[in-house]
Formats: sequence, C-alpha cells, structure tokens
Amino acid sequence: MKLNIALLAGDGIGPEVIDQAVKVSDAVAAKFGHEISWTPALTGAAAIDAVGEPYPDETHEACVAADAVLFGAIGHPRFDNDPSAKVRPEQGLLKMRQRLGLFANVRPTFTFPSLIDKSPLKKERIEGTDLVFLRELTGGIYFGKRGREDNDNTAYDTCTYTRTEVERLAKKGFEMAMQRSKKLCCVDKANVLETSRLWRETVQKLEKDYPEVEVSYEFVDAVAMRLVQWPSAYDVLITENLFGDILTDEASVISGSMGLMPSASLGEKTSLFEPIHGSYPQAAGKDIANPLATVLSAAMMFETAFGLKEEAEAIREVVNKSLADGVVTEDLADGGKAYKTSEVGDWLAKNI
Amino acid sequence: MKLNIALLAGDGIGPEVIDQAVKVSDAVAAKFGHEISWTPALTGAAAIDAVGEPYPDETHEACVAADAVLFGAIGHPRFDNDPSAKVRPEQGLLKMRQRLGLFANVRPTFTFPSLIDKSPLKKERIEGTDLVFLRELTGGIYFGKRGREDNDNTAYDTCTYTRTEVERLAKKGFEMAMQRSKKLCCVDKANVLETSRLWRETVQKLEKDYPEVEVSYEFVDAVAMRLVQWPSAYDVLITENLFGDILTDEASVISGSMGLMPSASLGEKTSLFEPIHGSYPQAAGKDIANPLATVLSAAMMFETAFGLKEEAEAIREVVNKSLADGVVTEDLADGGKAYKTSEVGDWLAKNI
Ligand SMILES: CC(C)[C@H](C(=O)O)[C@@H](O)C(=O)O
Ligand SMILES: CC(C)[C@H](C(=O)O)[C@@H](O)C(=O)O
Repeated sequence: MKLNIALLAGDGIGPEVIDQAVKVSDAVAAKFGHEISWTPALTGAAAIDAVGEPYPDETHEACVAADAVLFGAIGHPRFDNDPSAKVRPEQGLLKMRQRLGLFANVRPTFTFPSLIDKSPLKKERIEGTDLVFLRELTGGIYFGKRGREDNDNTAYDTCTYTRTEVERLAKKGFEMAMQRSKKLCCVDKANVLETSRLWRETVQKLEKDYPEVEVSYEFVDAVAMRLVQWPSAYDVLITENLFGDILTDEASVISGSMGLMPSASLGEKTSLFEPIHGSYPQAAGKDIANPLATVLSAAMMFETAFGLKEEAEAIREVVNKSLADGVVTEDLADGGKAYKTSEVGDWLAKNI
Repeated sequence: MKLNIALLAGDGIGPEVIDQAVKVSDAVAAKFGHEISWTPALTGAAAIDAVGEPYPDETHEACVAADAVLFGAIGHPRFDNDPSAKVRPEQGLLKMRQRLGLFANVRPTFTFPSLIDKSPLKKERIEGTDLVFLRELTGGIYFGKRGREDNDNTAYDTCTYTRTEVERLAKKGFEMAMQRSKKLCCVDKANVLETSRLWRETVQKLEKDYPEVEVSYEFVDAVAMRLVQWPSAYDVLITENLFGDILTDEASVISGSMGLMPSASLGEKTSLFEPIHGSYPQAAGKDIANPLATVLSAAMMFETAFGLKEEAEAIREVVNKSLADGVVTEDLADGGKAYKTSEVGDWLAKNI
C-alpha cells in the first residue's frame, strides 16, 4: 500500500518526537510491505517565523492532498501572556481544524501497568481505566461570533450548535461504543444551556438506532468530579468543544501516562494524529523528550486512517516492550538509565 | 448581637443537615451572648410543590430582610433527565443568585489530616492543600441570551461579561489573597475567548493596586490538570461562572472530604452559606447524612457575615473534635460506630 502522509512537526519538541514516529512508521511499513511518502509542511510559531502565518495555505494544501496528517506540537512562550498578539500559533491550530473539517477529536486515556505508580491517583482508583473522549472540535464557543460592545466595556462569546453537528459527532460516539463496551456517556450542562439541551435531545433521538448501547447523561461538573473519583467507570464519552477541552486534559493526567497519550482528529475526508502533550519549549533541542505519545499516534494513524490493524498492533507491542525493557527517556527512567529521544526511536525501529 | 438569619432548608437531606447547623449555631450564640432569629422559607422542589415556584417572592423577601441566609440543598430526581421540564429546582437557584446579587461564590478546598486517606489522590499529592476558588456567580453564559433558530435546528448560548462584573469579583480575589498567601491565579481561556481576554485585561490592570500580590494567569484546561497533579500549588483562584462550576466541583473531590466542604455566596448586601454537596435524595429522611459541611457553612457565616471570628473558630474546633473522637456519620465511620445525623448535631451543640 502507498501511504501519503503530511508531516507537521511544529514547534518546541515537535520536530524531535516527530522524527522518531517517522523512523518507527518507516520500519513498520518496510516490514509489512508498504511505502510511505512523507510531505513535511510548516505550522505554528515555525510557520509564523517563516511566512507570517501559523497555518499557511501551502500547509493546508499538503494536508488536503495527503491520506493522513501526522502532527507534532505547537506553541511558543513568546506568544504566551500576550492576549493582544495579532498572530498566535493557536490560531493556526483552530484554522487547521476548521479548514480540514476535523470535527471529532478522539482522546483515549488508558493505563500502562508498568506506569501505574506515576498516577497522582491511588492505584485502586486508576486501575483498569480505559476510556475515550470524543470531543466536538469545529463548533461551539470556539467558532461562534465574539467581540466587544459598549465602548470596549463588554465582551461576549457565542456558543452555537446545529443538530447536524451534534449528530455526526454523536454517531461516531455510538459507533465507537458498539466496538467497545456499548456504554456511552453524553456530557453536557442541560440544566443551564440551550446548546446542551439540543445535544441531549439529539443524542436521545439517536438512541433507537443503537438499541444495544446503554446511554447515560451527566452534567459536566459531575463528570469533572467522577473522573477523579472513579475513572474506570467510564468508557466512551461524547461532549462539546469547550467541555471536551477541559475534561480531556483532566482525564489525561489521571493515568500518570500523559506523556504517552495519543490522539486523533477525524474529518469526513482528512484525519490528523498527534500526541496530546504540548510543545514543551524548555526541553526543545535537548533530545530528551519522550517520543512515545507521537509514536502511539502513528499507531492510531495506521489503524484509523489506513485500516492497518496489524501494523498498529506491531507499534504498540514494541512500545510496550521498550517500557518493559526500560528503554525510556528520563521522565520514565526513575533512577535507571535515561535514553535519549533519538535512541528510543532507533530502538523501537530496530525492534519492530 | 442580634442575628437575623433566613433558613432555606430545601430538598432531600437539606432539612436534616440544616437542623444540625441550627442546633450548633444556637449553642454558639448562647455561649457568646448572641440571639439568633431564624426565618424559615421555602425553596427548590419543596417550594415547587407548595407554591409552584422554586424561588417564591416570599422567600426572596425573607432573604432580603435577613442579615444572612443559611441554605441546605436543592434538587429532586423527578426533575432530572427531563430537559423540557418547565419549572425546575435549579431555576430557583439561579434566580436566587441573580435577585440577591450573589456575585461571588467562595469555595474552599482543604484537607483534614484524619481524612486524608479518603482522598482519591495519593497522600503526598494532596497533603497541605488549602485553596479557595472565587467563582463569579451572576454573569457569563449562565445569564446570557439563549435560544433556538433555524426551525429549531440551531441552539445558541451567549457568554457576556462587563468590566465592572470582572472587577468586583477580581477585587474580592485580591483582597482574599492579601489575607492569605498573597498568591492569586486568574483562570481563563484567553487564547480563545473574548470574554477571557476582558477578564485578563481587567485583572492585569488591578495588579498595580495590590503590588504585594503575585498574580498568575492560567488556562482552564491546564488548571483542570494541575488541580489533580499538584493541588497544593494553588492558593486563591478567580474565575468566571462556568469554569468555576466545573473546577470547584473537581477541586471538591480531591481532598477526600467533599461531605465536609462549606461555601459562601457573597453579594453587596446579602450573603448566603451552604454546603457544597447536593440534596442526596437517596439518603433523605434516614437521619444518616453528614451534617458537617452545613455546620462548617454556619461557621463561615459567623465569620464572614457577622465578623464573629471566635464564634466561627469555636464551631470549627468542635467539628475537629468530633472527627478526632469518632463522633461521625456512616460515611466517615470506617467500620467504627456510625452516629445518626441528629446525634452528631446534638454532640456538637453540647460540646461547643
Ligand atoms: C491551544 C488551544 C486553542 C487548544 C484548544 O483549546 O482546543 C488546546 O488546548 C487543545 O486542546 O488542543
Ligand atoms: C444546579 C446548577 C445550575 C448549579 C450551577 O451550575 O451553578 C450547580 O452545579 C452549582 O454549582 O451550584
């Protein structure tokens, strides 16, 4: 199979971790007889520096032309704490999501038995946790009308959802539930928000199409609590953009394996795969960042974008082996030997 | 001193836990030579049943006439999962907040050494946690314009903030920081939302009036993570209504003492005190609910509404004593003797 992949390394540690994912992907492709053609493209602060735009048109075209996009991380401290900056890396991210129509952000949280002690939660609370959030990514308050009024003394943001937007996200949720434990939780704030009531209505209507799926409806504040109390009680959760932003980040730290969590953003045509961690500028260029989340994002790409399950499984297996054998970066070394980012990548590629 | 207190017991376990707070308050008043006049009033499902309205005018008048309001809990399962219900207990809550102008919700999270093992977090993560959220309570997306458009196929909610609204909440935050460790964290989503940018601007301008306070600005998704990772790093946090709803609930479970956490809602004239737990309908009428959060809310009331610090301290001391002596309800009994709600209240009143 010929795989055309756009490669958006981004900022900070992005390029370093992406390099390892490329090595591992190439190794798995060689093993299974595929050929990957990588098309690198600029994004984030790197793109602002080069062409004054965090998501340039050429990058968009590269993504559209590709079968999948592999993404590193974006963000640079010089843009932080400057709400008035005209061009910011995050804008590139939002523009990319919207232009590529990446409406469903898939964010799994699971545990690695060997890393369970890294969780801030007690072992008995976190054990067995294996949940996945489907966050709506191209609607809601992120993309509604916003502005100032009354002589700059009032600010407003608008959260909007259409039935169609909710439906396509919810359907993905039901389908995912069917492939997992047939449990779906719809997270909203229907006791206050009209958009949440539309979400709840729409999901309730879909229930009859998936009679095997057991659906629960929970308020976002309650889920924020229960994720800390009993995360293993959840399986598939669907939610709107802003709630998803907050809850997926909360969920990501409970496993203790945040540096290992991959994600996917799915559209009708294009899909994008990226580690959930940020650009971690303090570590950039030092060859110390943990590349596993990006490598596992590549595994998600093989499975989700190309339907290549065995290839994905091979990557996951070699990652597990590296953890078991202690071939890990300093964040996981725990007093043992700390391997460099590039050494971990080399080891994974060789052992696949 | 003569203290006029409106008493809104509400639904579920509300009346039971309120009874204990009344006993303890009367005992502390007797000891220090005050006289309390309690004015009971209806709210929540109880008020819907009696007069068809969750926050009736008479209740509002009783609150306005009082020096402080002591509140139990509201909510009843028969209104849940029915987004179309015309009258719901929560509406009473929102109406009450707005009509009484309760713009600042004070939500502390702290640990009791004897209960630290109840936390879902590991001891070393939670130890020393003592933070307080100031949540804006009468603005934002809770009270903005909302509705349907496009033949009922589109729903929207509007989040609005004025500079004045942000300022009065932020000032309370700065003042609270001055009385504590002089650290203030402003939680927003200024990389996306215009209202958040207004928040950040406004808080930045106030910094010069409180030169001793060290202010940090963090995104809501990052705070959702760090609250689980290192809650003890925070002291005073200020935030808007919806973020506050989610984060205060998340914070409340990390200490392991959710059943003990009090809260206050402050306005220019009136202030209201209530436990953060809900109406817990399954336990209603069984005399088993833990009354300590309500009793500690009464302590906050003595201190905050009446400036009676010694009285508040006396209540906190007797609560600590009850915990140390194992005079606790079944949720804290841990195999030991479980006291009834009313027995804990009697014990506290007697030992004050
Ligand atoms: C950078 C920011 C705009 C973005 C978001 O809020 O969506 C990020 O937090 C994320 O979750 O990918
Ligand atoms: C019941 C609900 C409307 C309310 C809120 O969201 O404010 C509750 O969750 C709270 O935090 O007091």
